[in-house]
Amino acid sequence: MSHVRLPLITLTTDFGADSPYVAQMKGVIYSRLADCRIVDVTHSIAPQSVREAAFLLPTNVMFFPPGAVHVVVVDPGVGTERNILCVRSGKQYLIGPDNGLFSMFFDKPDCDVRRLEDRSFWRSEVSDTFHGRDIMAPVAAALAADANQFEKIGSAVPLEQVVRIEFPPVVIEGNGIQGQIVYVDSFGNLISNLSRQQVESVLAKSDLCVRLEKHVIRRITRTYGDAADGSVVALFGSSEYLEIAVVGGNAATALSAGVGTAVRLE
Amino acid sequence: MSHVRLPLITLTTDFGADSPYVAQMKGVIYSRLADCRIVDVTHSIAPQSVREAAFLLPTNVMFFPPGAVHVVVVDPGVGTERNILCVRSGKQYLIGPDNGLFSMFFDKPDCDVRRLEDRSFWRSEVSDTFHGRDIMAPVAAALAADANQFEKIGSAVPLEQVVRIEFPPVVIEGNGIQGQIVYVDSFGNLISNLSRQQVESVLAKSDLCVRLEKHVIRRITRTYGDAADGSVVALFGSSEYLEIAVVGGNAATALSAGVGTAVRLE
Amino acid sequence: MSHVRLPLITLTTDFGADSPYVAQMKGVIYSRLADCRIVDVTHSIAPQSVREAAFLLPTNVMFFPPGAVHVVVVDPGVGTERNILCVRSGKQYLIGPDNGLFSMFFDKPDCDVRRLEDRSFWRSEVSDTFHGRDIMAPVAAALAADANQFEKIGSAVPLEQVVRIEFPPVVIEGNGIQGQIVYVDSFGNLISNLSRQQVESVLAKSDLCVRLEKHVIRRITRTYGDAADGSVVALFGSSEYLEIAVVGGNAATALSAGVGTAVRLE
Repeated sequence: MSHVRLPLITLTTDFGADSPYVAQMKGVIYSRLADCRIVDVTHSIAPQSVREAAFLLPTNVMFFPPGAVHVVVVDPGVGTERNILCVRSGKQYLIGPDNGLFSMFFDKPDCDVRRLEDRSFWRSEVSDTFHGRDIMAPVAAALAADANQFEKIGSAVPLEQVVRIEFPPVVIEGNGIQGQIVYVDSFGNLISNLSRQQVESVLAKSDLCVRLEKHVIRRITRTYGDAADGSVVALFGSSEYLEIAVVGGNAATALSAGVGTAVRLE
Repeated sequence: MSHVRLPLITLTTDFGADSPYVAQMKGVIYSRLADCRIVDVTHSIAPQSVREAAFLLPTNVMFFPPGAVHVVVVDPGVGTERNILCVRSGKQYLIGPDNGLFSMFFDKPDCDVRRLEDRSFWRSEVSDTFHGRDIMAPVAAALAADANQFEKIGSAVPLEQVVRIEFPPVVIEGNGIQGQIVYVDSFGNLISNLSRQQVESVLAKSDLCVRLEKHVIRRITRTYGDAADGSVVALFGSSEYLEIAVVGGNAATALSAGVGTAVRLE
Repeated sequence: MSHVRLPLITLTTDFGADSPYVAQMKGVIYSRLADCRIVDVTHSIAPQSVREAAFLLPTNVMFFPPGAVHVVVVDPGVGTERNILCVRSGKQYLIGPDNGLFSMFFDKPDCDVRRLEDRSFWRSEVSDTFHGRDIMAPVAAALAADANQFEKIGSAVPLEQVVRIEFPPVVIEGNGIQGQIVYVDSFGNLISNLSRQQVESVLAKSDLCVRLEKHVIRRITRTYGDAADGSVVALFGSSEYLEIAVVGGNAATALSAGVGTAVRLE
């Protein structure tokens, strides 16, 4: 097993799968940091959906090694006066516009934020419409090469000054807990904002009942294959959030549900 | 020309193009094996279509160097009692669930199979719904780094115990050979299960006639550009299987054919 | 910041996103050049659209480092008598069929062209239908490893013998300049063939007016966020070509425009 540490950058954007804009960012990164590894997290964030990217980030970042730099370009305000932030969360770094993308990291322990200011890290020509390529990619290359650059890229931003977005609330009532679907994956599985930890702190494992609009699911299954084809099941998925699936099928289509649909456990 | 050998892992899944689940697997691999190269074969296998992946594997694996490890996650039974296999075929390795994915390799010479058992190779936390990330990816990293680990990942499985899937038969009759379309590529070319070798062992090259439902093609062409735009042609494609194409067009649409359509040569 | 120079190859094709044919090319490259970096520019070129790829190349190539080798497989004539070219443009290399793909490079300074002839660089078995994998990929690996191989891959081709495609003209009249939309990106932004340089050499920056069919846009904006949501704006995009966008929306859909729509500045 190799224990070399090599620079690693991930990219998450709303550019659409297979976009040449992504390739331009990679060209900039490799021009500055030849031995970098680059991972595409996804480029299929719904156009300008800061909320979708904000939800997705924490469940992906956790699988990458210390020192990884995550560039997130969902940036409807590109070229306007908004800041571009670099968030250090534990031993990883996130770079993106100050529009709420990193809201789920600000309340975690060991979080420091800087704004990108020192233009010596940037491309010499900066367009008005593509800061992902001209500012974020070269700063990411500098940080992936040497994490100590974090102190040099710009000044610290107090956590009370960053932009945060509101997430749909998880409501705990006497005999239940209510959340909503926040992500639909490519299998049509409906992933909610109810974490295993939250649910188990409120409700006993036995005698649970999940309600998704008119559908009632009588128990929480361990995995997809634990029920017959076509059954609607509820389970804690691979990121430990409650999800609703149809065995061998597509729950989003079968149940006419999607982002925003309410989910209730009793 | 460089002759360094570096670890190489390929990924084939039904997660959908541009899925963040793929990125999670890459994060796990790079966390353990920094200098690995990772190639996406495709993530567009039809959901849970073991058959489609099983067909695709042999024609792709052959282009990769010795030591390559191919992870294949088409895994409707994830979390149930099914085994996860590692198949050594020649000098390459394939990892995936024991559901028939590797059927086309079991009868080749120099094939050994083990089941993944030694949990010290796995992620310390194993989810019930994503063994591609929690079991297969880390075992792949270990094998790509050092092929001698093959003997340590788990016990040998006799070939008579593995799951095999049935493939559509190739029927040889007096004056003809019949197969079917098994894959449609992104150009709409219809690729059959009739290999050049099979066809040439049965039929003379001259005076051939190909029937695809009501369409009759009078000869086998060498390449697409050998006929006028809009012509229906039959040729042995880049993986040496007979395919039906429309020059400058989309055969699947133009001929209303797809996976399962019968093809007959006389 | 690392200053190692490592081999780098980019791939641009019409194979469709997530195609296993791309993976086969990568397998061939890595089999010959283990420490290569490979970047997918896009595989979503419209099938057989030499024109679309020809337009896209120059705006992407410029972001890659010296020594980069760009393989472009939009090759309706594969297997016929057409040449395969390697174009050296400055310190970068482009490889693809001689069908006009590289038209925008032939008139730049410092351009040399060779045809691929020396079969010792190729795969030992060359199919009739996939020269991207069997000829271009291995030649790219050889060049990425050692640019001096350029002289050895085949004989020089005079620039008057290469195939060129006609691009839609930019017409300059007394009080205006007219071009057309040549590319629609994944946001629906309509990108024209009018470069900032051309426009500014003809027209004063103030008092400009952009006409796209019946739509009139009264000024050129600096970036998307400079106007209210839903506004139609004209701006010079990240590649310095005039583009028409709808703030927070999709201009192609909203304006029913696409490749070929005329754009006029006055």
